[in-house]
Amino acid sequence: MADGIEWEAQPGHGITWPQGFSAAGVRCGMKEQGNDLALIVSETPATVAGVFTTNYVQAPCVTYSKRVVRRGSARAIVCNAGNANACNGGRGDRDTRSMADLVAQTVGTDPAEVLVAQTGIIGQAMPMDKVADGLASGAALSHGPAVDEQVARAIMTTDLVPKQIALTLRTKVPSGTVRIGGVCKGSGMIAPVMAPPHATMLCFLTTDVGMPPHLLQEALNAAVERTFNRITVDGDTSTNDMVLLLANGLSGMEISDSGPAYASFRQGLESACRQLAKAVARDGEGATKLVEVVVRGASSAEGAARIARTIAESPLVKTALYGCDPNWGRILMAAGRAGVPLDPNRIEVLLGEICVCRDGHAVELDEQGAHDYLKQEDVRILIDLHGGTDEATFWTCDYSYDYIKINADYHT
Amino acid sequence: MADGIEWEAQPGHGITWPQGFSAAGVRCGMKEQGNDLALIVSETPATVAGVFTTNYVQAPCVTYSKRVVRRGSARAIVCNAGNANACNGGRGDRDTRSMADLVAQTVGTDPAEVLVAQTGIIGQAMPMDKVADGLASGAALSHGPAVDEQVARAIMTTDLVPKQIALTLRTKVPSGTVRIGGVCKGSGMIAPVMAPPHATMLCFLTTDVGMPPHLLQEALNAAVERTFNRITVDGDTSTNDMVLLLANGLSGMEISDSGPAYASFRQGLESACRQLAKAVARDGEGATKLVEVVVRGASSAEGAARIARTIAESPLVKTALYGCDPNWGRILMAAGRAGVPLDPNRIEVLLGEICVCRDGHAVELDEQGAHDYLKQEDVRILIDLHGGTDEATFWTCDYSYDYIKINADYHT
Repeated sequence: MADGIEWEAQPGHGITWPQGFSAAGVRCGMKEQGNDLALIVSETPATVAGVFTTNYVQAPCVTYSKRVVRRGSARAIVCNAGNANACNGGRGDRDTRSMADLVAQTVGTDPAEVLVAQTGIIGQAMPMDKVADGLASGAALSHGPAVDEQVARAIMTTDLVPKQIALTLRTKVPSGTVRIGGVCKGSGMIAPVMAPPHATMLCFLTTDVGMPPHLLQEALNAAVERTFNRITVDGDTSTNDMVLLLANGLSGMEISDSGPAYASFRQGLESACRQLAKAVARDGEGATKLVEVVVRGASSAEGAARIARTIAESPLVKTALYGCDPNWGRILMAAGRAGVPLDPNRIEVLLGEICVCRDGHAVELDEQGAHDYLKQEDVRILIDLHGGTDEATFWTCDYSYDYIKINADYHT
Repeated sequence: MADGIEWEAQPGHGITWPQGFSAAGVRCGMKEQGNDLALIVSETPATVAGVFTTNYVQAPCVTYSKRVVRRGSARAIVCNAGNANACNGGRGDRDTRSMADLVAQTVGTDPAEVLVAQTGIIGQAMPMDKVADGLASGAALSHGPAVDEQVARAIMTTDLVPKQIALTLRTKVPSGTVRIGGVCKGSGMIAPVMAPPHATMLCFLTTDVGMPPHLLQEALNAAVERTFNRITVDGDTSTNDMVLLLANGLSGMEISDSGPAYASFRQGLESACRQLAKAVARDGEGATKLVEVVVRGASSAEGAARIARTIAESPLVKTALYGCDPNWGRILMAAGRAGVPLDPNRIEVLLGEICVCRDGHAVELDEQGAHDYLKQEDVRILIDLHGGTDEATFWTCDYSYDYIKINADYHT
């Protein structure tokens, strides 16, 4: 593996693309319709890395899976949708543990090798009989496009589309093939701020490369920081967010240090995470478009990220985007309230290629052109602060009537 | 003046209630309809205090009025609605100065004694000819309920109702009457974070007490910190927020130190600010209800305020409130993401008198009763962290379809 190597996308494939991974997606009746329980299994014990929500209110599955990640090895991931099993007291702890036990029996492993992820309503007891029935009746493991999509659909809540990815890299020296598979869900309560061992944004990644836990965790941390931690739908960070990565080594390719092979793997992993993260923002609750917010010319990378997040989370910016309104004044307002010193008289704002603000004030503007640009499904806002060389990119979506509709009566 | 003294409300009165203040509200054509230019004048030079937006992008009127406050004395406040004159480059600076000049000529004072406030669209040049015509043709000063309401209406943008207050305190030793008048606007871009010299949230206060500038500023800082800085509609802090307080001394009552008279005045001032701040939150864009968020049992007052603000700004909490949905899971989620350490297993949540969560998990709940409670126009969420003795209160509103409607096409 060397610099500049392109990973090859494998459309239609997902979580079972790497060697030695199989899965199942079944219905156990927690969601109103469709599959709601997913199981992902590695033939052999895999090295595991994970990042989890930084919310101080954390579901038991977060606490439990952190412990598995700390041990560094896992065989399976189980995930249910429809019930977050958060804020359920001691019973919640026991139910998460029971899920791990049930899966361990099904797969033939130790509960300490089972990662648990959950998403859905907060504060309602888990219907454990349904989980048990679902696992007992339908958890036949397989691999390939059909089960990949079943898994992607089984973990969805308010998501409208399944989100998955598969990448391949063929290498010459050493000769071999490394694969990455991934599946992801998330639409609302999306503003992941995840730290090693954050929506409910859930992402499960598999790879058949072999890697020691500390290096795998380092690669995941770096990828998540620049991808999942840079998306926001509503600014609300879930109690259940997690990204899990299993590496089972079955490709025969071992990466044991931070050399060129590691750099290439990191590049592939970050690419997979970026594509999935953008898919989450695009499928944000009620979203009509994906919005990329790029802040350039900042005096620090952290400051650039704070400004980009504040713009991406501003309700006034997001409603203007829904209205296809080139209201750059709201963009400047949001930049200015981020708590990062800046010179307003230097700010330049571009919508796509259309400059709408230079030196902090209006330019002659083709209003209709700007309006038409914002009608697209992919739009980009670039804010150049002209005050340094640092930059950051966030992805978000607009706020529509459907956002209100979806969230005003989700619970009852 | 002594402890426990009640200020007497004077319904129907407002900004010209204290002695020696007169005002005018005229139409100059910046808004589509109605008055859009207000003038408030003190007969004699008044001591002035002010707090202003902490947004790094500030309108020229903020910069200009800060300088007036620094000098400590003013005769007049001029405010236009429909144009924020923010992000207009050098021309914006000149136009603000021109407004002060025009008012100084009209009133017969120095431009350095004129405070300027502006609200409306960002990034469009001020129509200064309209301002000049408006001042020349219609600025006949008067006092009383009629002009008070004209002023309250002239400073409105997306506000649906005028907001004003008038209070009286009659004292025995020394014998006299002290009055406070106030007028306020704000509906969107409301999350004032104002510091001494923060929606566009504008509030103008008058009083006929006499007080040195430093003491007046100290009283205003304290009042604003616990009132206007504790409201949020959309979390977006404007480029133009300001609260101005003029004290002309014409009641004959002088307060020169921080004794009991000062304490009573502070109490009255805070009461006036609280009533106006709550009126802004109640009139938030698209709001169907006023929501009071009380966080108790925190280990620090700052932590309590951060948690209260995060709950009050959570789109998922605000949409649930619109749906009258007792979704306490979202309240815990928001509390946990505020960045303040807390023990989730101790959290208690009440909606009004109805306990919906105890020890961090669900209680037997009268769902219909909780739903009916949330249908009211005034609702209260109390979160007890059971982790200390500090508390904080924020006021906000719900997120409705109308919020999207109002903001998706404000600009064009």
